[in-house]
Amino acid sequence: MGRTQPHPEVSQVGLQSVLEAMVDPVRRSIVTQLDAAGEDLTCGSFDIPVSKSTATHHFKVLREAGLIRQYYVGTSRMNALRRGEMDETFPGLLDALTTREA
Amino acid sequence: MGRTQPHPEVSQVGLQSVLEAMVDPVRRSIVTQLDAAGEDLTCGSFDIPVSKSTATHHFKVLREAGLIRQYYVGTSRMNALRRGEMDETFPGLLDALTTREA
Repeated sequence: MGRTQPHPEVSQVGLQSVLEAMVDPVRRSIVTQLDAAGEDLTCGSFDIPVSKSTATHHFKVLREAGLIRQYYVGTSRMNALRRGEMDETFPGLLDALTTREA
Repeated sequence: MGRTQPHPEVSQVGLQSVLEAMVDPVRRSIVTQLDAAGEDLTCGSFDIPVSKSTATHHFKVLREAGLIRQYYVGTSRMNALRRGEMDETFPGLLDALTTREA
């Protein structure tokens, strides 16, 4: 199973935390790319204009806000969009935030 | 007609500006109260835990993000939610942000 980090229950995450995560354009881009891909992606496969350490921070914020689930496959850290859970708790929010980039 | 401030075209406002406006819980509460009221409200009629001058700042941010339209009736500044325009440009966003307070 490998290393895992704590993930909150989406139902326990407040809208405030989700918005604070999604107000950042890089984080919103990560979620939009993950949504468009339709599959889990490694951290390295995103097209984002930031350093690796900054990217790691952004993934952590998204994970703690309940937006993504992270897990390891070998040495690769994978990212999964928690769309079903998000849609259940915040109906329509991800659709509204991922349909446009800017 | 009285004094009026500049209002942007909602179609020219980016999602980034809307999210920066709506990430603030007081501003989100103003929009939620305006939406629930279903009518235009004076600045003084909102239940928000901030000073008058801070409230004025929040209304200004909302106006500049295209979320509300402000106009005067006598000496009262009225606030109107630009729901139709917002829904047209950002489908589902206001619904997702006003259905819950926290």
